[in-house]
Amino acid sequence: MKKILLAVALLSPLTKTSVFAQADYQADSVFIRKIFNTALSEGKSYEMLKTLTQDVGPRLSGSAGAAKAVEYTRDVMKQLQFDNVFLQNVMVPHWVRGAKEQGAIVIGKQKISVPIAALGGSVATAKEGLKARVIEVKTFQELRDLGTEKVKGKIVFFNRPMDPTRLNTFEAYGGAVDQRGAGPSEASKMGAVGCIVRSMTTRLDDIPHTGSMRYASGAPIIPAAAISTNAAELLSKTLKEKPETEFYFKQNCETLPDAPSHNVIGELKGVKTPAEYMVVGGHLDSWDFAQGAHDDGSGCVQSIEAVRLLKVLGYKPNNTLRAVMYINEENGLKGGIAYADSAKSKNEKHVAAIESDRGGFTPLGFGIVGTPAQKAKIMGWQKLFSAYGIHELGVGGGGADIGPLGPQGTVLLGLIPDSQRYFDYHHASNDSFDKVSKRELELGAASMAAMLYLLDKYGVN
Amino acid sequence: MKKILLAVALLSPLTKTSVFAQADYQADSVFIRKIFNTALSEGKSYEMLKTLTQDVGPRLSGSAGAAKAVEYTRDVMKQLQFDNVFLQNVMVPHWVRGAKEQGAIVIGKQKISVPIAALGGSVATAKEGLKARVIEVKTFQELRDLGTEKVKGKIVFFNRPMDPTRLNTFEAYGGAVDQRGAGPSEASKMGAVGCIVRSMTTRLDDIPHTGSMRYASGAPIIPAAAISTNAAELLSKTLKEKPETEFYFKQNCETLPDAPSHNVIGELKGVKTPAEYMVVGGHLDSWDFAQGAHDDGSGCVQSIEAVRLLKVLGYKPNNTLRAVMYINEENGLKGGIAYADSAKSKNEKHVAAIESDRGGFTPLGFGIVGTPAQKAKIMGWQKLFSAYGIHELGVGGGGADIGPLGPQGTVLLGLIPDSQRYFDYHHASNDSFDKVSKRELELGAASMAAMLYLLDKYGVN
Repeated sequence: MKKILLAVALLSPLTKTSVFAQADYQADSVFIRKIFNTALSEGKSYEMLKTLTQDVGPRLSGSAGAAKAVEYTRDVMKQLQFDNVFLQNVMVPHWVRGAKEQGAIVIGKQKISVPIAALGGSVATAKEGLKARVIEVKTFQELRDLGTEKVKGKIVFFNRPMDPTRLNTFEAYGGAVDQRGAGPSEASKMGAVGCIVRSMTTRLDDIPHTGSMRYASGAPIIPAAAISTNAAELLSKTLKEKPETEFYFKQNCETLPDAPSHNVIGELKGVKTPAEYMVVGGHLDSWDFAQGAHDDGSGCVQSIEAVRLLKVLGYKPNNTLRAVMYINEENGLKGGIAYADSAKSKNEKHVAAIESDRGGFTPLGFGIVGTPAQKAKIMGWQKLFSAYGIHELGVGGGGADIGPLGPQGTVLLGLIPDSQRYFDYHHASNDSFDKVSKRELELGAASMAAMLYLLDKYGVN
Repeated sequence: MKKILLAVALLSPLTKTSVFAQADYQADSVFIRKIFNTALSEGKSYEMLKTLTQDVGPRLSGSAGAAKAVEYTRDVMKQLQFDNVFLQNVMVPHWVRGAKEQGAIVIGKQKISVPIAALGGSVATAKEGLKARVIEVKTFQELRDLGTEKVKGKIVFFNRPMDPTRLNTFEAYGGAVDQRGAGPSEASKMGAVGCIVRSMTTRLDDIPHTGSMRYASGAPIIPAAAISTNAAELLSKTLKEKPETEFYFKQNCETLPDAPSHNVIGELKGVKTPAEYMVVGGHLDSWDFAQGAHDDGSGCVQSIEAVRLLKVLGYKPNNTLRAVMYINEENGLKGGIAYADSAKSKNEKHVAAIESDRGGFTPLGFGIVGTPAQKAKIMGWQKLFSAYGIHELGVGGGGADIGPLGPQGTVLLGLIPDSQRYFDYHHASNDSFDKVSKRELELGAASMAAMLYLLDKYGVN
């Protein structure tokens, strides 16, 4: 087979970048094995996640929990003796849910309570709540086709499920989340007085999943909430039998003035080119009623752990390596934007950025955003990852928080874990520590450390 | 690239078997997509698993639960209108745990209770329990090196953890389980009066994991139990500080006479060669205190579902396809042996057998046991599986229950799911329905159906 492989290698577009010296390959294999062994036998990520999720707890931007999370992750990186640990000021939106929402399907005098959660950014209903007839649609087009006459004064109910047949659940989410993000304004443009959305999950259960929405400028502002998938099924069935069915909901959320918060950054100083940066990160904020274990406590502790692993293994980086906890991914992305702005204004050259924001599940690959040559170079490291289940390099993108670095020429990488369970917990009260597997979390951290090591050692060009 | 691929194809040892006509490839792709879509959108496996684990519940061989499981799975396959559903008589061991065990670390007058579970097949202690000093070892060699003088009259405590650095947790299990299976007799040969074993899991928690053991002929028979990993850590620490520490345990288990039970079989009759068989299966029995959701309720319902999927999609098999629920994998393998014996005596040619007994987790591949040509042929279907995350064909073996078919020339395949969480639950009370992800379970069932389809359509030679 040797001849064939050589022939392929000579002709392959990957050749120049993917073949590295046998000696390096051996050394890299050994070092990456050490990274994984250390993560799996003496890892700290699970313990950190326990504290972040159970002691710190929910941490929506602007909340006391978010401030506590900033302190905690800063303290952790100081205790780990990173070379430099600091905060970056970020002004963030400050939305609060207020008293627990109420929701009910109303059939004449019968009221059936259903699990409901205000969407992030929504306004409250009137104090007495909102009750109106319901019009169910699956798409914006269907809504527009109904015409304002049929929608006026009603609550629009978006009920298009995530497509369960998509293997990658993020694709299924992408195919449904317009209902939550833009649905309320689409509804109000047609005269609706309120909007409810089927929760973004493929499961049938009683747990509402929140998430951010944005009011389109010019459209009337109406209250919006998510109901559980079981409630959506029941409401849909009821409407078919009794079209005069009403929906009632009451919520008390409000948007307060922007609040001061922080990105949290810890670094290992580079030895050769300390003014060039490579970062690993996750976002520190979570929704207000969730421990945010998978979204994205996992990404935060994996990022700290990735840098810690290289440090305890005595690796001296060429570039300055940073673990970054971005604030406000959920409802504003202000942390990611502030981080990129700061990098630009300080002329900190960011060579590569890795993000973990798809849950602490078994890692399967990395998405890569870069030039074809950069992608090919990184994909050339596949062989070094195969022993660890990482088999998809280059499929998919980076991540929301690191996106703003893209225009600076930074290569963006996103950890791609198994996605099957992510939307069981996403933006919901059951996204708790007990849903995270220690080994799966550790494998993700080790994968990120290994990728960071290779990026640092070989660069991206 | 076409020329290169052709060149490789012409020289590759896989060529003859792996290249199939483009038209077939298209048709197979479409059909396999239908299998996955149906499993993910209208699958029955999760619902069946709920009944098997929550309504039927624990089902150790010889128990009323096992009898109920036989009835339930037979009834399900009848309701699904499989062509033929029948039971196969099997005599199985009948071990019972009796009253709940007690265990304690005893330091002078202080008693610290610890979670404990008798090993399957163990004898009881005396009625008043067993109390003795403890000798901790990691290996049989270490035990033998101590000599009978130091071991006599003591309880041997096997405390070698599963190696957390093995990516494949089954390898870590394989490297530690000798302590449970053969440890009691190794200990008694050296004069020990009892044996306790660290639970087979990489987690540190308070849940004891049982499992089968066997007494070596000629060795004195002593009671044996597993203690939780936290208890093992505590005992080990205590022994270092106070070597005179004793351990106390009391258990009431006993082995009753063998009992009648059954394998449960449902089939779709083959159209071309009905006297040739292809089977998918899992084992119906579980440990007595576990719902057996991952071990192996999942494998049972996936097997039924795999056959159901082909049936509802209107596939007319060439060979007779069977879903087989083997009884008694946990403590005797009598079902697997009886099945193979029956196949042989009835001259039923078994071409291929698939087993799922590694949990209902995201499927990653299939192990294959066959001739090199058979393996190569099956591995040549890789491309048809890649869209579904199945990327490891041919790594690993078949399964315990189908092993006895091997000498009949049957090609053996084992579904290989992600293994990271399996030993968190294995043989323990937390192996319950809520630990199974609907989508992960369904993907496994679909993968088995797709493999069964390809085996049936193309054969193994």
